[in-house]
Amino acid sequence: MRLTQFSDFALRTVMFLGAHPTRLVPITEVAVAYGISYHHLTKVASMLADAGVIEAVRGRNGGLRLAMTPTDINIGWLVRRTEPDMALVECFEHETDTCPITSECRLRKALKDALRAFFAVLDAHTVSDLLGSPSRQEKLVQLWRATA
Amino acid sequence: MRLTQFSDFALRTVMFLGAHPTRLVPITEVAVAYGISYHHLTKVASMLADAGVIEAVRGRNGGLRLAMTPTDINIGWLVRRTEPDMALVECFEHETDTCPITSECRLRKALKDALRAFFAVLDAHTVSDLLGSPSRQEKLVQLWRATA
Repeated sequence: MRLTQFSDFALRTVMFLGAHPTRLVPITEVAVAYGISYHHLTKVASMLADAGVIEAVRGRNGGLRLAMTPTDINIGWLVRRTEPDMALVECFEHETDTCPITSECRLRKALKDALRAFFAVLDAHTVSDLLGSPSRQEKLVQLWRATA
Repeated sequence: MRLTQFSDFALRTVMFLGAHPTRLVPITEVAVAYGISYHHLTKVASMLADAGVIEAVRGRNGGLRLAMTPTDINIGWLVRRTEPDMALVECFEHETDTCPITSECRLRKALKDALRAFFAVLDAHTVSDLLGSPSRQEKLVQLWRATA
């Protein structure tokens, strides 16, 4: 069970932008700070911009910045947006389900409850919680800089 | 986020065997009852036998049966055995993690807590709970028979 790399990169991007609130951040800077693919990040940034989470300013002095305040970016909400598929097993999707016992199955209910518990934890967090105090954010910035 | 088809089939197999406690069940019967791949099921059965969950008796009158009582087969335990990878994101695996902020990252903790909550729900269930009373099991058997 894994989240997609897309979700992983989306979460990392909003954390990076949240810790750099005063300026536009070029995508390259995020890619270098984490040592991850610039190409993948452009797709992630495009999705985050479409979702209204970030703003992408084009041009020579352009870059990314959060379009929402960190207290308003809920982690559970974000993961639901970035994951293409939260159907743990076949019977979660009515259209393609062929299992004959779905109507009476308690396993399905147990898995749905487990997924609900998973998101209940993520729903209790925002980007702001994850970033913490200004001094913690400064520590994160130092760690990113050490990579760049 | 999905469980593997392997986990899905393993869970379905133990439920089927749990509802047919008095005889050896040929793999074909499980495959036909669910309308799923016989070939995949043989691999699932082999893993479940290695894990001591089921017993596979070879020969013309052979088949599968549970090697543990349904009350002893915990769903969380089983899913941990059948999933190849519970590393939601890169930083869950120390060996391959390259993220520079792992040591200070609260996102990692939030995701770990979410995964823990997911398994806490599954850990509260056994195959016996999922099968329910003998009359519920009879209902499941009827649904499987309707497919075969």
